[in-house]
Amino acid sequence: MKKNYTFQLELKVRDYECDLQGIVNNANYQHYYEHTRHEFLVSQDISFAELHNQGIDLVVARATMAFKTPLHSRDKYLSVLDLRQDGLRYIFDQKIFRLPDMALCNSARFDSVATINGKLGRLPLLDDLVNRVNAEKNNEDNQ
Amino acid sequence: MKKNYTFQLELKVRDYECDLQGIVNNANYQHYYEHTRHEFLVSQDISFAELHNQGIDLVVARATMAFKTPLHSRDKYLSVLDLRQDGLRYIFDQKIFRLPDMALCNSARFDSVATINGKLGRLPLLDDLVNRVNAEKNNEDNQ
Amino acid sequence: MKKNYTFQLELKVRDYECDLQGIVNNANYQHYYEHTRHEFLVSQDISFAELHNQGIDLVVARATMAFKTPLHSRDKYLSVLDLRQDGLRYIFDQKIFRLPDMALCNSARFDSVATINGKLGRLPLLDDLVNRVNAEKNNEDNQ
Amino acid sequence: MKKNYTFQLELKVRDYECDLQGIVNNANYQHYYEHTRHEFLVSQDISFAELHNQGIDLVVARATMAFKTPLHSRDKYLSVLDLRQDGLRYIFDQKIFRLPDMALCNSARFDSVATINGKLGRLPLLDDLVNRVNAEKNNEDNQ
Repeated sequence: MKKNYTFQLELKVRDYECDLQGIVNNANYQHYYEHTRHEFLVSQDISFAELHNQGIDLVVARATMAFKTPLHSRDKYLSVLDLRQDGLRYIFDQKIFRLPDMALCNSARFDSVATINGKLGRLPLLDDLVNRVNAEKNNEDNQ
Repeated sequence: MKKNYTFQLELKVRDYECDLQGIVNNANYQHYYEHTRHEFLVSQDISFAELHNQGIDLVVARATMAFKTPLHSRDKYLSVLDLRQDGLRYIFDQKIFRLPDMALCNSARFDSVATINGKLGRLPLLDDLVNRVNAEKNNEDNQ
Repeated sequence: MKKNYTFQLELKVRDYECDLQGIVNNANYQHYYEHTRHEFLVSQDISFAELHNQGIDLVVARATMAFKTPLHSRDKYLSVLDLRQDGLRYIFDQKIFRLPDMALCNSARFDSVATINGKLGRLPLLDDLVNRVNAEKNNEDNQ
Repeated sequence: MKKNYTFQLELKVRDYECDLQGIVNNANYQHYYEHTRHEFLVSQDISFAELHNQGIDLVVARATMAFKTPLHSRDKYLSVLDLRQDGLRYIFDQKIFRLPDMALCNSARFDSVATINGKLGRLPLLDDLVNRVNAEKNNEDNQ
């Protein structure tokens, strides 16, 4: 049974992302995850630049990554994302699967916080987003 | 009281490591930490290349990073490391402090495992290293 | 009139590729160009790994890049390539155009040489490729 | 006879800068060169941030690099720089030598131009710098 994710992006390993051992250098998974979060927010019409101009920034406070199966040069992969909230934290649960066999390569959690003029705060915009995407997700799960 | 670390390295932010917001891109902390671990192992005469030729690899299984204070363009920083063991895991406790004010920028834990011809195993070489560096550390703490 | 290129690839700027000034850091154009050359060779069934195992490597000897219009965060771009030969040099003429307005962002030339067991040499495989792609290109130009 | 350079910086290859072939990925030479130029300008009390706030930017218009001998993991290297002027172009002649044998690894030329409120122009500050460093260099050459 295919799990239902809030957002997913298909990407491909580029040779320059691989290191001496012929596998993707660990730091690049952070790039893949960041790129996926940004693409997700853009897909929801949330503009970092616009928020930044209003004095609002969304920053990663904590990252946890579990490295399972290394990606190799030229592998295709699926980068998936779910979003939830825990107090002032917006939590992105993210995974990277190798294609086409869907082997789990990396499993991660990124805790983000919003700063409004430098102070921690809630973002009604993101609160709405969390509610919306999870309502959609539950609907799909129930069908 | 200055804490006594097993290994420390002084480095400096390079402009190309900074992103749109003028701060070090999160993925670069992983580079800084990896570089520090490799420099530490080299300082202990442990050669990855030699181990690799014997079929032995040391790989990161899990990474946790807490982002506290961002580093900016041209900041100097101190990257410190301690090493301990938990079953088959070699755990690197790492921190990055901004210089000269020693503000904590990032606090991390990297769990590594050794694979011997592709199978998880213990590395007597690393077991010895863990014992040695911690004995030295305790001696210094007691002086 | 649209020029007829030997190979082209559509890509998109990722935020982490941009620097302090909000534009793509210059070094990333080299990544884009390298990625394009590798994708081209793969599209022609030329495998670096296989060649390497036969003691053959294709290395860049000289690179020239002219920076025209900077790419910004999230811009889409077209990376195009032509290939010709000059003595022992395989010359990749490459360009990057911003999409959709096709503004020229970067124009480059990469001179590669083949080493066979460490010595400069000709690669019949690449000589054939040069002849083939240019014959195809001329045919299309004449139609 | 040791050549007399305007500026030089000693650096060391980091493992994550190496690619599949175990050598420094070509794009990293651009990082090394950029870092050297920025360190040089900072050593001359020229601040990009301050210039930028006055509407002045110094941008690379053209780059040429000749790849001679590849740097490997953990190599130390010397990155050297000279500066001259040609019309509106500030030309950085840069080289990278492997240490300690001073084998030439890479030889490059970066042509920069100044933009003042978006228009090409001369920077008296940089004109003075060019004159000063070359006068010093000639003095040393004559001693």
